[in-house]
Amino acid sequence: MPSANGTNAPQKPGGWGTIPTSDVARRTFNPIRDILTRPVRPLASPQSSKDLLSLSIGDPTVFGNFKAHPVVAKAVEEAVSSYRFNGYPPSVGLPHVREAIARKYTHPDAPLAANDVVMTSGCSGAVEMAISVLCGSGKNILLPRPGFCLYNTIASSHNVEARLYNLVAEQNWEADIDHMESLIDENTGAILINNPSNPCGSNYTKAHLKAILAVCERNKVPLISDEIYADMVFSGQTFTSTAWLTSTVPILTLSGLAKQWLVPGWRIGWILIHDRANALESVRQGLIALSTLINGPCALVQAAIPKIFAEVPSSYLGDLNCQLESNARILETEINKIPGLSVITPQGAMYIMVKIDLDSFADIENDADFCHKLKWEESVEILPGECFSYPGTVRLVITPPPNILCAATARIASFCQRHSK
Amino acid sequence: MPSANGTNAPQKPGGWGTIPTSDVARRTFNPIRDILTRPVRPLASPQSSKDLLSLSIGDPTVFGNFKAHPVVAKAVEEAVSSYRFNGYPPSVGLPHVREAIARKYTHPDAPLAANDVVMTSGCSGAVEMAISVLCGSGKNILLPRPGFCLYNTIASSHNVEARLYNLVAEQNWEADIDHMESLIDENTGAILINNPSNPCGSNYTKAHLKAILAVCERNKVPLISDEIYADMVFSGQTFTSTAWLTSTVPILTLSGLAKQWLVPGWRIGWILIHDRANALESVRQGLIALSTLINGPCALVQAAIPKIFAEVPSSYLGDLNCQLESNARILETEINKIPGLSVITPQGAMYIMVKIDLDSFADIENDADFCHKLKWEESVEILPGECFSYPGTVRLVITPPPNILCAATARIASFCQRHSK
Ligand SMILES: Cc1ncc(COP(=O)(O)O)c(C=O)c1O
Ligand SMILES: Cc1ncc(COP(=O)(O)O)c(C=O)c1O
Repeated sequence: MPSANGTNAPQKPGGWGTIPTSDVARRTFNPIRDILTRPVRPLASPQSSKDLLSLSIGDPTVFGNFKAHPVVAKAVEEAVSSYRFNGYPPSVGLPHVREAIARKYTHPDAPLAANDVVMTSGCSGAVEMAISVLCGSGKNILLPRPGFCLYNTIASSHNVEARLYNLVAEQNWEADIDHMESLIDENTGAILINNPSNPCGSNYTKAHLKAILAVCERNKVPLISDEIYADMVFSGQTFTSTAWLTSTVPILTLSGLAKQWLVPGWRIGWILIHDRANALESVRQGLIALSTLINGPCALVQAAIPKIFAEVPSSYLGDLNCQLESNARILETEINKIPGLSVITPQGAMYIMVKIDLDSFADIENDADFCHKLKWEESVEILPGECFSYPGTVRLVITPPPNILCAATARIASFCQRHSK
Repeated sequence: MPSANGTNAPQKPGGWGTIPTSDVARRTFNPIRDILTRPVRPLASPQSSKDLLSLSIGDPTVFGNFKAHPVVAKAVEEAVSSYRFNGYPPSVGLPHVREAIARKYTHPDAPLAANDVVMTSGCSGAVEMAISVLCGSGKNILLPRPGFCLYNTIASSHNVEARLYNLVAEQNWEADIDHMESLIDENTGAILINNPSNPCGSNYTKAHLKAILAVCERNKVPLISDEIYADMVFSGQTFTSTAWLTSTVPILTLSGLAKQWLVPGWRIGWILIHDRANALESVRQGLIALSTLINGPCALVQAAIPKIFAEVPSSYLGDLNCQLESNARILETEINKIPGLSVITPQGAMYIMVKIDLDSFADIENDADFCHKLKWEESVEILPGECFSYPGTVRLVITPPPNILCAATARIASFCQRHSK
């Protein structure tokens, strides 16, 4: 009988070689993980003894300054103690929860009903299902550069070719529409946009969103609109959901509780199916089919959603955005003082992008090298633009409390000074 | 620019045709869904006006007779009110939770550490990851017949060929070892077994598990052991975890909170990596990579696990099994009285399989027809063996309360009498 392990690896106890992992698992590659764990080459100075300041991961809960509203916890507690949500929910989600989400996000120009909502395991799960349902093997998808790296991980895992369209830093990170359109061919399954953006912190105007929708319309390519940072915008900005601006383009809008409601660990998200042209009937069936694979997200957290939407006071979001903006301004002001670094002013979400002028530094090779040395010498963790397919920049999260932001920027300043030409 | 919709469907508003769904979504086919929603051909008698008695879905919580232990709810409430589990957990799970699971399931003959545990979205998520990590496109997997249909759905979704090995009803549903072995070739990524079994209600002896392990050993094929019904066995039976019986065969053991702790809606499961031959290093990395796709299950429910394991009293499981067994015996006794039907005595889990002697009936074509007509005429819902790739039988769940079981069997009896030759 032939052996299942075809590798030439040395024999192991019992005569088992190394069992090869599947092509799917090998294609599932997360660049953030890779970069953060890449070995640091030995440096002259010892690793800093300072405490680690992490401005790397988009988790607003780690420092305790951003806390879920008490209603949010109360809503889950009620779901637990009711004993009504211990059984299997339908794989697409509990009906009254889908109804509550449809009611919250319906819009005169983009009406939604309960059937248009599919519950997912986090917005990550929504991204996975949206890519999976629209793009099979051999298809391609248009993704933003810079962009959230999970898009690339999921596309690659599903054997879908990622084609990266450029965002233009100097134009508030708007998409280069001509470049975007030039990437489309007959195998393009979807265009994905992310507004407000991770990592850019940008918030698109209606005019720009319409320009993107026009690309979809001309090429008859559906849109995936990742709006996990919906409504998280700074003063003077207005958030527009892409679906409000078209009466034809089929859109899957993705979101979840993670960011605005400050509970990323609860792993709850959703897909809103906007099908004004009646073009998504197969896709809708496909989403239902895919939802049966893991049978939906936690019913307790699903059941909390109607109360969260109904009872978290309307002042909450304004306060959250205010605090985020104030943090962003601290970082921007301090970092712009540092020779060699310049901030691209954010308009929302939880991140700022910083350009590195490598010519200003004596011994910094690239953005990844900047981040590695910074962590080694100053114990400040930030992510290199490489993680977002956008070298020459670094991304900082704006959610730590002001004292930590100030301490971090002071360390970055002395690091930059030490390495300047 | 070419259009993304290559179908010949009629044009829709705005000139959009039907957007085709992906090959993956089209391959993701759930037979239970299909069979339960298949149109019933018009029958002479009107649909029954009786209230629906559902013995179809393996959800023990629906009738209120099986309730999660109060500690289980309390454990989640504590996790919620602590505010400590709102942030992102590591994608493979919270370290102290993995530790608690390793401690509970470690065995002198199959030691486990926290690193050997990967948290998943239900045992469904564990099945999905285990199949995905061991079997890529072009591989095949050996699955039991009869068996839980999600295995086939997941295999097909991942483009993995399902090869069904026979279970022998007359031998307590043991696998036909020769048949199993004959299906293996160089593309076999794994053998999957399910013990105790859905739909069979069987519980394997050590000798039989060893015979299966010997197949794995001879052919160097790893084993996936779905033990979601671990420890749920009737009097006189002992549950044995497959991993205890080998010091070489690589095993992924799958389980979760759904069944034994009566909270299927919480969507929490895990994979235990048994790698005594050091053959699973790539697979372990593959599981970590795959876990980043949706970033693990709900942290609140994860965090409840240590308390659940520590504080649910040891009498709980015995009581649960006792009640399940008593229900099974009611069904068995009543159904065996009905001419044309015979029960294959279950030894555990939550199901019984009933053979239908089609020759005893005048106008029942097959098992699916039996179920359809039964639902139509008597408002009793059970699943045809067809759902489990095993025609000629029907599956009943044993979790409804005794009065419902009695009402259901009475209706089945009059149905059978009406249709008898
Ligand atoms: C743009 C974007 N989409 C999706 C996600 C995933 O969100 P969730 O935690 O709900 O899976 C993130 C998380 O950082 C994100 O930044
Ligand atoms: C054999 C078997 N494996 C796995 C599962 C899935 O369990 P979960 O609800 O935890 O996803 C089930 C559920 O019925 C089952 O019967």
